[in-house]
Parts: sequence; C-alpha cells; structure tokens
Amino acid sequence: MNGERIEILDTTLRDGAQGEGVSFSVQDKLKVIAELDALGVTYIEAGNPYASPRDAELFAYAARHPVCRKAVLAAFGATCRANTQAESDAGLRALIESKAKVVSLFGKSSLFHVNCVLKVTPEENLRMIHDSVALLTAAGQQVFFDAEHFFDGWQDNAEYALKTLLTAQKAGAARLVLCDTNGGTMPDEIERITREVCAKVSVPAAIHCHNDSGLATACSMYGVMGGAKQVQGTINGLGERCGNANLCEVIPNLMLKMGKDCLEGGELERLTASARTISEIANMRLSRKSPYVGKSAFTHKGGMHIDGMLKDSHTFEHIEPEKVGNQRRFLVSEMAGRGALMTRLKTVAPDIRKDSPEAAAIMERLKTLEAAGYTFEDADASLVLRILGALNRRVSYFDILDFHVVSRKPEDDKNAQAYVKVRVGERVEITADEGDGPINALDNAVRKALARFYPSIESMKLIDFKVRVISEAGTASRVRVHMESAGGGKTWSTVGVSGNVIEASFIALTDSIEYMLMSES
Amino acid sequence: MNGERIEILDTTLRDGAQGEGVSFSVQDKLKVIAELDALGVTYIEAGNPYASPRDAELFAYAARHPVCRKAVLAAFGATCRANTQAESDAGLRALIESKAKVVSLFGKSSLFHVNCVLKVTPEENLRMIHDSVALLTAAGQQVFFDAEHFFDGWQDNAEYALKTLLTAQKAGAARLVLCDTNGGTMPDEIERITREVCAKVSVPAAIHCHNDSGLATACSMYGVMGGAKQVQGTINGLGERCGNANLCEVIPNLMLKMGKDCLEGGELERLTASARTISEIANMRLSRKSPYVGKSAFTHKGGMHIDGMLKDSHTFEHIEPEKVGNQRRFLVSEMAGRGALMTRLKTVAPDIRKDSPEAAAIMERLKTLEAAGYTFEDADASLVLRILGALNRRVSYFDILDFHVVSRKPEDDKNAQAYVKVRVGERVEITADEGDGPINALDNAVRKALARFYPSIESMKLIDFKVRVISEAGTASRVRVHMESAGGGKTWSTVGVSGNVIEASFIALTDSIEYMLMSES
Repeated sequence: MNGERIEILDTTLRDGAQGEGVSFSVQDKLKVIAELDALGVTYIEAGNPYASPRDAELFAYAARHPVCRKAVLAAFGATCRANTQAESDAGLRALIESKAKVVSLFGKSSLFHVNCVLKVTPEENLRMIHDSVALLTAAGQQVFFDAEHFFDGWQDNAEYALKTLLTAQKAGAARLVLCDTNGGTMPDEIERITREVCAKVSVPAAIHCHNDSGLATACSMYGVMGGAKQVQGTINGLGERCGNANLCEVIPNLMLKMGKDCLEGGELERLTASARTISEIANMRLSRKSPYVGKSAFTHKGGMHIDGMLKDSHTFEHIEPEKVGNQRRFLVSEMAGRGALMTRLKTVAPDIRKDSPEAAAIMERLKTLEAAGYTFEDADASLVLRILGALNRRVSYFDILDFHVVSRKPEDDKNAQAYVKVRVGERVEITADEGDGPINALDNAVRKALARFYPSIESMKLIDFKVRVISEAGTASRVRVHMESAGGGKTWSTVGVSGNVIEASFIALTDSIEYMLMSES
Repeated sequence: MNGERIEILDTTLRDGAQGEGVSFSVQDKLKVIAELDALGVTYIEAGNPYASPRDAELFAYAARHPVCRKAVLAAFGATCRANTQAESDAGLRALIESKAKVVSLFGKSSLFHVNCVLKVTPEENLRMIHDSVALLTAAGQQVFFDAEHFFDGWQDNAEYALKTLLTAQKAGAARLVLCDTNGGTMPDEIERITREVCAKVSVPAAIHCHNDSGLATACSMYGVMGGAKQVQGTINGLGERCGNANLCEVIPNLMLKMGKDCLEGGELERLTASARTISEIANMRLSRKSPYVGKSAFTHKGGMHIDGMLKDSHTFEHIEPEKVGNQRRFLVSEMAGRGALMTRLKTVAPDIRKDSPEAAAIMERLKTLEAAGYTFEDADASLVLRILGALNRRVSYFDILDFHVVSRKPEDDKNAQAYVKVRVGERVEITADEGDGPINALDNAVRKALARFYPSIESMKLIDFKVRVISEAGTASRVRVHMESAGGGKTWSTVGVSGNVIEASFIALTDSIEYMLMSES
C-alpha cells in the first residue's frame, strides 16, 4: 500500500493478436490504441513492422499523426539473425524505420532454445543480443529486452539466462523483460527468481506472463512483489493458447489490492468500458464471468445473496463495481425468487405490491417463459413487456396479422421476399419487401409496413443480432435470438425463442419496435 | 512433490448452479455426477434438498440407486434458524432425510455478517452452529462446516472467526471449510491465515475460493500450501459472479506442478473430456482459452512458435497435452504461413510439395476465403474439401441445381416448405419436404433428394449447429454457420459463410454430406 508506480505495457495488439480467431486491421488497431491511451496505460506494443506490412503501415501513420495523448507506442521485433551483422539485418532496419520511441526486442535467454531452436553457439546468441540492442539504442530508441523463456531458461541454466540480461543491459537496454513464455511457472517461483534477478541487474525489470496454468494474474502480481517495475499483458487476456496475463485483472489488483499506482488519475473507472470496447473491436466474446469487467462480475442471483446485498453491499462484493466502471445487477430467475423481480417491478409498475396476486401472476408467467428457453438477464426490454403483459397493461401499437417469406438459392443479395399484413387501430396495411435472406426480408417488410403509421421507426437501428441454439436437434433445434437495437440516443435489448430462427427473430423484432414506441409515448 | 493426498470436493451442481444462465434438471445432475465420479473427485456436492424440490428428488433417487462408483455425494444446507431448536428446524430435517453421507453445512463466521445480515447475537450464532453440527453428526452424517466469509471475517475479528470453527469442531464437524466467499482475498493472505488456522484446529481444513479477483486458482493452491487438505471448486469455474475456483486448473496444477495426489490412478487424462461434457450439459460455452482443457490451450498459431514446436514440443508447451486428455493443434492462418497448412496437406494430398505452384494456389484460395469470413480452425472437413477443390481433385457426388423455401407465420412445427432440384450423374431429382423453419425444411428436402442415390445419408445426424454474426449490419449481417455431423461412429465439422443464414447453412450442410460420401468411398 505504498503508491509505488508500476508501468503497464499493453501488448493486446501484438501478443494478443496471436490469439486464435483474432485479427486486427490498421483501422482496428488505431481504435484500440485510442482506447488504451484513454485508459492510461504507459506503453502500447502495437505490432511487428518487419513481419507485417499492416503493422509497418500503422507505424508510418503514427509517425506522421498524433495517435496518443500520453501513451508511448512500442514496436516489436527480434534480435538480428545468426551470423549476420546487426547493421545489415532487415528486421532491425524495419524497427528503426518504424520511428517507434520504444522497441520491444526479443531474444533467447534459455540455453535449451539456443541449442535446439536457434541452433547457434551460446556466445553467438549473446553477440546477437548485444549488437542488436546497441544498434537500436544508438539510433535513439529505448530498447526493452524481451528475454523469451526466461523462467524456463533460469531453471535450466540460471547463469546463462542471467548472462543474456546482463549483455542486454550492457548494450543499453532500458528494461529487462522476464518472460514466462510457456505459462508453466508457479507464482512463488516467479517471485523468487524475479527477486534474485533484481538484485543482480541495475535496469528495471518487467514481468510478462502467460495463462497456461490459470495463474498469469497471480504470477504478474508475484513478479511485482519480487521487484518488477513493469507488467505486460493484454486486455481481456487475449493471446495465443490460453492467453496473456489479463490486464483487466492485473491493473485493478495492483491498484485496489496492492496499493500501486498504474494509471493516471481516476481512469480505473474506464476499465469496464475499455474491456468491452476492445472486445467488440477484436470481435471476441467477453466472458460474462470476467473478474471486474464481466457482465456477471457484480451480478447477484441466489436469493440469500440478494437479501444480503439489499442490507449492505459489502456482504457479497469485494469492491464497489463503480470503481472499475461496472454495475451491480440482480437477476430475475427461478432461484432468486421474488426479491430481484420486485426491484425491477418498482420502476415498471410502482403500484404493485410484493405480496399481491398480480406479482404472483407475473412470477408465474416468467417461470413459464424461462422453462421454454427464454432468459431475460440480457433482454430488459422484453422483460418489461412481459411484466406489462401479465398485468394486462401492454398497449397495442400494432398487430402483425400474417407474414410469408420466400427464399431462393442466392444469386444476389436480394434473394428473399417477405409479405406482411399489419393492423394498426382500424387500419390494415399489406406490403412486401425484399432482403438478403429471409430474416432481413421480413425485418424490412415489417418496418416498411409500420413506418407508415410510426415514422420514428425509420431511425431505429439493429446494432446486434445473436442466435443461440438452446436444445440440440440439428437444424430443428430450439433457438434463442437476442437483438440489441438503438434509436434516439438509447439502446435496448430483446429476446425471442422458437423452434425456428424466423419466428424467434420475429418475436425479438416486434418486441423491439413495441418497446421503442412505448418509450416515445 | 510429495504425493500427499488432497481431497477434491466438486460443487458444480450446487455453487456452480448459482452461475448466471446455469440451470440443471435432475437428469442433468445425474449425468454430471456420473462424469465427476469417472473423473475421480472425492466428494460431489449435489444440491440443497431443502431449498429445491428437484434436489430433494435427486437425493431420494440417489438413496435408492447406486449413482457413484467411488465418489461420495454431499447435500448442502444452512445451520438452523435463529432462536429455533435444531431438532425442529425444517432445513436440517431435510438434510437428514436426504440420507446423504456428507452434509456441507454453511454458517456465518464473520461478525459483520452476524450483526448485519443474520441480526443475532454472536453467542446465538455459535449456538446455531453447535446444535446444527451436533444434530447431523448424531444422525450419522459427516458434517463439513462451511465457514462463510471466513477470510473477511478473520480480517474483521479473527478471534470470533476462529471461535466459529472451534465450535463446529467441538460439535463433531469432520472438515472446516475456509471460504473466501467474496473472492477478494490475495493468495499470500490465504496462505498465511490458513496456516494460522491449521495450527489451532485438529480437524482437516478445506479451502473454498471465488474468482472475483482472477485469483481463485492461485488462492486454492496457496490454501494447500498453508495446510488445507481439501480443495473445493467447480468444473470450468462455473458459479455466481466470476465463478468458483476452476477445478480444471486447480487439479492439474496440484498434480503436475505441486506433486499432490488428487484423483485415483490415471484419470487426469479424462479432465478435458469431463470439462467438455459438463459444459455441454450446463449448456455453457467453454472458452477456447481455458487452461489445460480449452480447444486453444495447446494450439499454435504464430509461425515461429509452430517452427519451434516442430523441432521440440517442449519449446512452447509447459506440459504434454495428452496428460490432461487434450490435443495439440496447429492453425492454418495468415500468420502461421505455410508451415501449418503443409502439415495438414501431408495427409490430404501427400504428393504436393511445399514449394509447388499447387501449394501456392491452395494458400491463395484459403486466404480469399478467410478474408470473406471463413475460419477453418474448427471445420476440418470443409478445409479438406477446399484443399481438394483448389487441386481440382474434388469428386462431384451431386449438384444442387436449385432450391426455394417458403416460410409462413408459424402455427405449428411444419411452418416451412422447401423445394429442391438435384443432379447426380445424369439423373435429376426434384422433390420437396417441410420442417420447422426454413433451414430445417431445406435440410430435410436435400437429404430426401440425395438419400435416393446415397442411402447412407439417412444415418447421418447433425449434432451441433451454431450461428455466429461476423459483421454487424442488423439482420443483414454476414453470418458464419458451423455444423458438426456424426455418422458411422465418426464426427466431422463444416462451415459456411454468407450474407444470409439459409445460404450459410446450405454450404455447411452440402459440405457435410459431400465429406461423408467421400469418406465412405
């Protein structure tokens, strides 16, 4: 609890991009950089300008435009090739040409890897490290020496592993990065070895962990306890195999549990937004259960837990969710009983009492729907409509009397047509539209028919559309469709469940339109 | 590395069932119990027979039928109510009637909770603990006393927290379970406090952690280092908020990294299968990145990593995947370059050389498809067909000349009809079928048409069907459909990408049929 400054190096865009299914365009990378800069990390390792033309383009752009407010961009690359002069190494030249202020330069620190993978003499590896670090330093770049497989190397031959660090230090390295590349080292070993290293080097050490044993967060913290002054990791733990140390766990743990200072000012409150934004850009699903930033991280489901939370929020929360920009939620579910539902009901129908027959009827209706596969945990607009429905307070804005969709073997993106018949008040409207696939055609036709009565529908947008198969019977599975819609500066979520994806989509879509009309009136 | 025995208590079915979106039927619970028993955990905490009629039914069934080979079932419940005699407490009576050999009985050990939530005197809480433990012990049950909020309670008032343990011990408790209920305690604190407790009690201690700080695995291990003889957790870390300690990380860490003995014999090799089976039953997505058991846990993507792995598997793996029943994979992707593709190509077309124009053509074709949204990482059958296609070696088993699907507003489960026209050799077949939704109707019609030529298609089954939206434009989003099919004792996976879900499904479906026909011939 000493307020000591610990630097954060984010490598979401470099090591994180090695994760299965992850790929960033230059535009994606610029968006992630802006978000990380706003969050307040110290360094952003943005890519490898030699290996990837996209990354070279990114650094060229960053050299001409101010892409960060405070954070410093780092380029990543390798020490020079064996038996090659550093000056004539194309990889090092690309690093210099990237004009990045900081270069993360990785080299071998494990004798096993020098022998087995690099297949050079131990001395030649030291020469490669020395000359490469010296060249970049002379070019005016700060060099962070990434000692790959450092902890495994230490176990194998500590003397040689240390020698690689001392060589980099002598050549001018500004940080010595101790990497647990395979993620197999235990936290107490990380602490012990980091402590021994810190006693023997004069340059600040950094800790870089992987999550193969489920311990990357702990190992990062134990690295700091051992004396590391910088932690490297990725947002949401993106990265190859089981991922890198998750900065969304490491940063709040360092700040809230160990009293370290990692981000400028109050930016920890931005953490949840950053985690979600970057997960969107990476097109990766952020686990609900993610510590600190997940949707369930401060969500209470068990009846007794909700009861405790209503008495005092410290009863079942280790920190206040606001500190990391997250929110507390109570789930409406079979298990939670009426407590949570009543909390929601207070805003929807404040006159309904907890012990009234109406409350029981709502509960019954929700249970039936949950048994059919509905979940309202992430579909508040549909929940509100179902509550109002059970109270007979739903306003009828429209009726979809019939629809009919035809899809053909696609030859262009207008391969489906939908016919719909709607009634609004006394008037019946029949219309049709086309689209790319049956759902899109039906969506277009329904909006077209209703927009004649409610022009504001034109401004409503679908911003997310998810399909989840909830029972397995091949293509006849039961599916749950989740939609997120936006309009008038607001967003809302709806859900539909059916044996077929068209009907499930239809339910979620009509809920979404009804909710918007209700909110406007 | 002492081979010391550490008990595992799995609470997937109790604390895990508190997770958002998790719900188990009695049948589900029986399947999970069978899997956990086969894996070799010591105790299975299966539910709360007082709070849930389904759980009462489960224990009644288990009392009459042998549901476990070796594992022991535990029922969960609370100490008696305040100012109530233990003998007349309905909850305790339900626990006795459950006939479970072991009862996990939770009580308050934090003075703050006694005052703020329970609202009884400290002495009354001790009385409740004592009388409840004594009653169940007298009824012949082994009582594990779950000291809720133990670590927070210790920080608040260590003397009182210890007193609750000593009270339970005196009343006959067989284990004292130290719970970090809110998941906020750091590993070094867990170790220190557990060590202090173990010096003061004579009954074995257990450690029960939650993952709110991303440290539950580390905390469980540090609890064992502090002297705990039992670890409690859930498969895949299921549980409320951020989940419980993940046994799929804790068990291999205890066995492979700390040399403890947790499971009988060689059952650690079952871990991956257990994790995946239970995740299926719980209908929860198992993260690819899950340490040890995830699909990506031993997957290599970066070109240099694959190069290293091909030289020696120790270069980028901390353990051999076989030890936990997982597999090594190399990804075909832009980043990995040709190395990984060539490994796959060797089995599909062994005559094609790495530097041939054919290999370059395959690479080109795959890059184009990847750019369009295809991923072959989880669709090996489609990958094989695309490789053969690029080599002009694809055998034409059938052509779908045309299709046409009509869907109506559903009134029953045959709300869609599909017409298809197929050609096999010189013969053309036109037929139609119906189904629940357009995809199911098309699937039925295609199979019906082709089964006339290839009767084995009748035996092919779709076992999984997933839809992922890969670019956002509402209902006109681009989607990727992933299918898993089974037949003749084998399973295979295919993928289709399109602007509409019908076409994407159609591609994955026809790939699947073609792959089966090819494998048979």
